[in-house]
Formats: sequence, structure tokens, C-alpha cells
Amino acid sequence: MYTINENYLDLQGSYLFSTIAKKVAAYKEANPQADIIRLGIGDVTQPLAPAIIEALHKAVEEMGTMEGFHGYGPEQGYEFLRSAIAKNDYQARGCQIDADEIFVSDGAKCDVGNIQEIFGPDNIVAVCDPVYPVYVDTNVMAGRAGKFNPEKGGFEKIVYMPCTEANGFAPEIPSQKADLIYLCFPNNPTGEVIDKAALQKWVDYANKNGSVILYDAAYEAYISEEGIPHSIYECEGARTCAIEMHSFSKNAGFTGLRLGYTVIPKDLVCNGVALHSLWNRRHGTKYNGAPYIVQRAGEAVYSEEGKAQIKEQIAYYMENARIIREGLQEAGFTAYGGVNSPYIWLKVPGGLTSWEFFDKLLNEVQVVGTPGAGFGASGEGFFRLTAFGTHENTIEALRRIKEM
Amino acid sequence: MYTINENYLDLQGSYLFSTIAKKVAAYKEANPQADIIRLGIGDVTQPLAPAIIEALHKAVEEMGTMEGFHGYGPEQGYEFLRSAIAKNDYQARGCQIDADEIFVSDGAKCDVGNIQEIFGPDNIVAVCDPVYPVYVDTNVMAGRAGKFNPEKGGFEKIVYMPCTEANGFAPEIPSQKADLIYLCFPNNPTGEVIDKAALQKWVDYANKNGSVILYDAAYEAYISEEGIPHSIYECEGARTCAIEMHSFSKNAGFTGLRLGYTVIPKDLVCNGVALHSLWNRRHGTKYNGAPYIVQRAGEAVYSEEGKAQIKEQIAYYMENARIIREGLQEAGFTAYGGVNSPYIWLKVPGGLTSWEFFDKLLNEVQVVGTPGAGFGASGEGFFRLTAFGTHENTIEALRRIKEM
Repeated sequence: MYTINENYLDLQGSYLFSTIAKKVAAYKEANPQADIIRLGIGDVTQPLAPAIIEALHKAVEEMGTMEGFHGYGPEQGYEFLRSAIAKNDYQARGCQIDADEIFVSDGAKCDVGNIQEIFGPDNIVAVCDPVYPVYVDTNVMAGRAGKFNPEKGGFEKIVYMPCTEANGFAPEIPSQKADLIYLCFPNNPTGEVIDKAALQKWVDYANKNGSVILYDAAYEAYISEEGIPHSIYECEGARTCAIEMHSFSKNAGFTGLRLGYTVIPKDLVCNGVALHSLWNRRHGTKYNGAPYIVQRAGEAVYSEEGKAQIKEQIAYYMENARIIREGLQEAGFTAYGGVNSPYIWLKVPGGLTSWEFFDKLLNEVQVVGTPGAGFGASGEGFFRLTAFGTHENTIEALRRIKEM
Repeated sequence: MYTINENYLDLQGSYLFSTIAKKVAAYKEANPQADIIRLGIGDVTQPLAPAIIEALHKAVEEMGTMEGFHGYGPEQGYEFLRSAIAKNDYQARGCQIDADEIFVSDGAKCDVGNIQEIFGPDNIVAVCDPVYPVYVDTNVMAGRAGKFNPEKGGFEKIVYMPCTEANGFAPEIPSQKADLIYLCFPNNPTGEVIDKAALQKWVDYANKNGSVILYDAAYEAYISEEGIPHSIYECEGARTCAIEMHSFSKNAGFTGLRLGYTVIPKDLVCNGVALHSLWNRRHGTKYNGAPYIVQRAGEAVYSEEGKAQIKEQIAYYMENARIIREGLQEAGFTAYGGVNSPYIWLKVPGGLTSWEFFDKLLNEVQVVGTPGAGFGASGEGFFRLTAFGTHENTIEALRRIKEM
């Protein structure tokens, strides 16, 4: 008889956001009139910017003509988009990244989930705690995590790097061996950042110890302060130790359009094998490129109109972040994040667990957030709220929370 | 130091179609005036049908409004599309497949490549020879293939099922143990099919021996003859032994739009674990759903206008298939396929290898095809031509081949 991948049986419960969706659906079914405000999942709510809509219509038009039809594209993405990314997201910031070091995909979640495939099974994985669950779960599926240890509140073989109030939510370099280090700044879920000097320490550590940093920069567009790196390649030496993942979801509202990219510098070499060539092979074998029309939409993100329109959208969400952060503080809560990030990391009051607080918010004031415990043991006692709602909903949610 | 996935080092050469693309690009650079006709890669050339274009524009319009904007969708696909698939591709054919057994994705290549992940590392993989390279390469990457054996012309641990002139290109049930059996009908690359009685034997074998059939039905829309199954679920007992993958690429021209789906019946259970739940978990963890606008385009494929327009496109390509098949036969070649499939499997004349014939066709008459050897040892001596060009190009290509 055939066998299944038994590592899947080591996964814990359902995927966090699926669980939340089910709880909300159950509440809604029991209370069909309830006016639920969702500040839980990190999904945007503003429509796509006009420049993007225009680019989409134009590309759709092309696809309906013999001359403009595009079939299979290059798996790595069209040159027009790879060049726009290299120029705008890297070269304009002084980072030496070429267009052919960029692999366009249908989203950072896929890339972040798939990237571990090109590494050996025995690498030690290090993640922040709390952490975006995909980093851990995909390594569980690949057998790198070992068994779940309820006492540890985590998997046996995973190195967890606590991000707590005590260390300002900045992970410390682990004392144990760590081969594959997942970092995400601005951080999901804490909303906190580290400055360039702190990130440089990670790069130096990785180069010295033969580690790879898997850097998730999905939220870089929300950085508002000086001195916070938008890319790990701003740090010296990152080309030999870091892979960076980017999303169009949060900066340009592509959550329903699906576009992202991964950067693998050609200098990133393990015992003579370029990781670029491994990922290139994976991309060519298991993937068939992002839709042409979506890549044209991605190109429009870098046009002058696109940039201006997207800047406005980010400002809109960041105004929500301010409302949430300041509103919570006025109401006597302790809240972090929300300055360089669309996420606010709220300290749960009154000794409740984060899932208890989730239920309380849902049942009493019909506001949906994300329980910190869903992101790891060190997330217990915290709660994530997102700035991706509308102004009206955000203000109303804060009004309700204050009343509660 | 971190390590790489060393299985990647066992992969043979580059991915077939990348190699062809590079050869053609080199020829084009050396001969910029050359009028190259591409009947190699299975990429469509006709523009998207009007009903699909209309659905895309409408969905793009929605994405530009507050009310119509769609962010993250269900990872498994929108209900409107899953229902349309279940109803049209299955229930209308008498197959008992429910909407929630369908997982929408960004294409059959991804699904076909990723599906092996939910199985254990020690399963024995069986493939047809010749074979679509993705089935083999993704199992090499996962470590199920062993080393490449040049004498065998294949990987040590893979069970190859020859599809030759002698057996009418119908694989025989292997005498060795085979846990994961990849089948593709209408076949890529041979263009040949098996009838329902023959497929039923595979289903019976799989149920009896505890194997899973991974059935690639990407070309079912091209079936023109009675008695050829469009889905493996037409066979009795397939719900307990088969997974089916489908594409929108070849029936509706979505090669550049990216949409496909995988069916996992809930009755497919391995020692108490439903494969449906494993794939559901994978999909939710490593994937974020196909773009909303592309799913609306997929829905339009099942509208009355969409169906009629797509039928015309398929007839257009099948007329090309007829031109190629009959043209080759008139010119004294032996050719298979092309009746229930857009692929013609040409027997290479004059004792040339299939790559020699590739070079000859490219250099002498500027026609690009796919060398059979690229699909496996039993593909040597054969050459794949596709019906996806324009009428004009197809006629011109045949004129040139006849002259040669």
C-alpha cells in the first residue's frame, strides 16, 4: 500500500486563519444581524488603484487579440516586471540586485512556503516567536521540525527566538546552531522593526556561521521612520547569505490578484552550488509563471501614477494604524507596532488568554482580531489588530473596544 | 554550514522546454531574419474567447470599486467556480464529484508537481515512458527517484512503463510494485488514448494493490471519439484510488492566464487519513488561491457562450491536427495521435536521433518541434508536433517538411 507524508500528522490544529474564519462564520450563523468588523486577517479593503485597473483592462484587451495574446510566459517573470522591480525596489535604494536575480511568483506566501524545498532535510530552522505560521508549518511538512512538544509550546527541532516586551520584540541571535533563519521586518505579527545596525548583525552572523537568512519584506512599504532598512540588501554582505521575499499584496492591494517575488543573489553559493540555479530549476519545473495580465498590473505599481496612488493608500491604512494605536493607549491598553507597520500588537488585559480575548471581542463587540497565541508561545497574552479596515470601521471598532 | 537539497543534483540537464527555448533563441540570434514556426511547446495561439474577455473586464471593473473588491479568497477556490466545475465536468457526465472535492489552482503543472508532497518518501513511482518530465523531475527533487542510470536511460527507483508502437502506446500494468502511478490521457506526448475498459483495468489494479493513480486529464477536451473516458471517475471504483488534475490551458487557452484544478474524492483514504484533508492543508498553508479575476474567467468557460466559443477553438486546433497528421502521412512519415489530442507523435525517419531531427528541422526548415528523447528513453526515435499554431503556419510548416 502507498503511504502518506506522515510529517503532516505532526501539524498542530488547523491553519490559524482558517480557524478564525470558521469561528466568525459560526458566530455569524448564530447572529445573522451582527455587524462584525474584521481587523483580524491582514487583508486589504481598498480597491485597486486606478493605474492598476487601467493596466489590467489594457492587458485583458491584448489577450483578446491575435497580436496581443500572451500564452506561457517565462516562469521567472516577464523582463518588463523584473526590470521594474530591480530598478525601483533595489537599485534606487543603492542595493546591487539585477533583474535576473528576481523570480516573480503568484505571491510571497507561496515563495515563503516553497523556499525550504531547495535546502536539505537536516538544516536547523530558526524562527521568531511569535511568528507567521507558514514558516513553521512548511518545515513541519518537510520533516525539519520534529514532534510538537506541548511543554515547550513548539516543535522539538525548531529554534524559537522569543520577541517579547523585554527585548523590544527584537529577536536575539540564537546560541544554538541555526542554518535557516526566517526573519520578517516590519514584523508580522508584532508590527515592530529593527534598525539597519541590528539587521547588519544578523547578516554578519549568517556569513560567519554559514547560515541563510530568509527575509520576508512583505511590509516594507509601511516603514515611515528613517534608519529602518527596506531590504536586507542594504546591509553589507547580504548577497552571500540572504534570500528576500516580497509581496504586492500589502503595498498595492494585490491580495486577490496574487503577485510577489523572491530575490536570490547569484553570490549565494553553498559548497559550489548556486541557490539561484536550484530555485530556477524549481520554478521551471513546478511553476508556470504569474498571469501576464497580473504582471502588467505589477508593472503599473511602478509607474508614476501608480506610485502616487499607492502612496495614498498606504497613508490611508497608516492613519487607521494611528487611530488604533492611540485609541488603545487612550483606553488604557498597552499597544506596540503601527508606526512602521499596519499591525498593532495589543497586550491582552486582565489575565485573559489571547483566544479568550478573541472570543470576548467577537461576542461582546463583534470585532475580529487575531489571537497572539496563534503565532507561537511568546504570542500568548497578545493580540493582533490590523489597519486594513476602512476608516469608518476602524473608528467604530475602537469606539466599541473603548466602551467594553 | 547549511545544506542544500542534494536530490536536485540528480536532475538530468535542464528542463526540456527551457533547453528548446535556448536552442531556438540561439538560432534566432544567429539568423535574425529566419521565419521560425513553433510547433514545439504545447502553447496555444488563439486569443481568449470573447465570453472570457468580457468576464475578465467585468471582474477587473469590480476590483476597482469598494463594493466589488475581492481580497484573499478561499484557498480552495470560489464556490461559484468549484460548483461550475463539479456540475459541468463531472455531474453532467455521470461522475459523482462534489464541489468541495475540487481544489482550484493556478494551473495543472503546479498541481501535478506538488501533489507528490502529500505522499511518503518511500513510495514507488510509476510513469509512462515517454512522459511529461514534470512527473519524474518533481519526484527526483523529493528523493523518490534514486540516481540516474544512463544504461537504463532512467532513474533507478522509477518504474517506467514503455508506450511503444508495439503496444499501441498503451502502458501495461507493471509487474513490479507501483504505489503512485501517473497516467495522462489523451497522452502527452504521444497523443494517443486508451478506452474506458482499459482505464477500468488500471482502477481495478490500483484498488486491489493499494496504489494511487494520479490522472492528468489536461487534454480531455480534445477527445473526438466515443468510448474514450473524459475523466477517470467514469470508471467504477475510481473514487477510492484516483486523483485527477485538470487544466484550463488547453481547452480554453489559459496558458498565460493560469488556472487549473485537482479533484480529490473524500473516499480516497490511506490508513484512516483522507488525502483530501492533507491536500487541503497543503493548499491552505502554501497557496493563497487563484486570482479572483481569473476564477471569473474560468466561470465564463462554462457559460453557454463560453462553451460554444471554446468548442470552435478546439475545432480550429483539431483541424490543424488533421493537417499535420495527414500531411505527414502523405509525405511518407509514420505519425500517431492527433485524433483525440492536439499532439502528433511522428516517427523520426532515416535513423536520426530525435535531437538530431530537432536540429535538422530547425536549421533546414525553421520548424520547431519537441524531440521524443526529451520525454524519456522510449521517446527516442519520435518527435512531437503540436496543433496549437495558426492554420497558416501549420500549412506552411507542413509544406516545408514535405519539401525537405
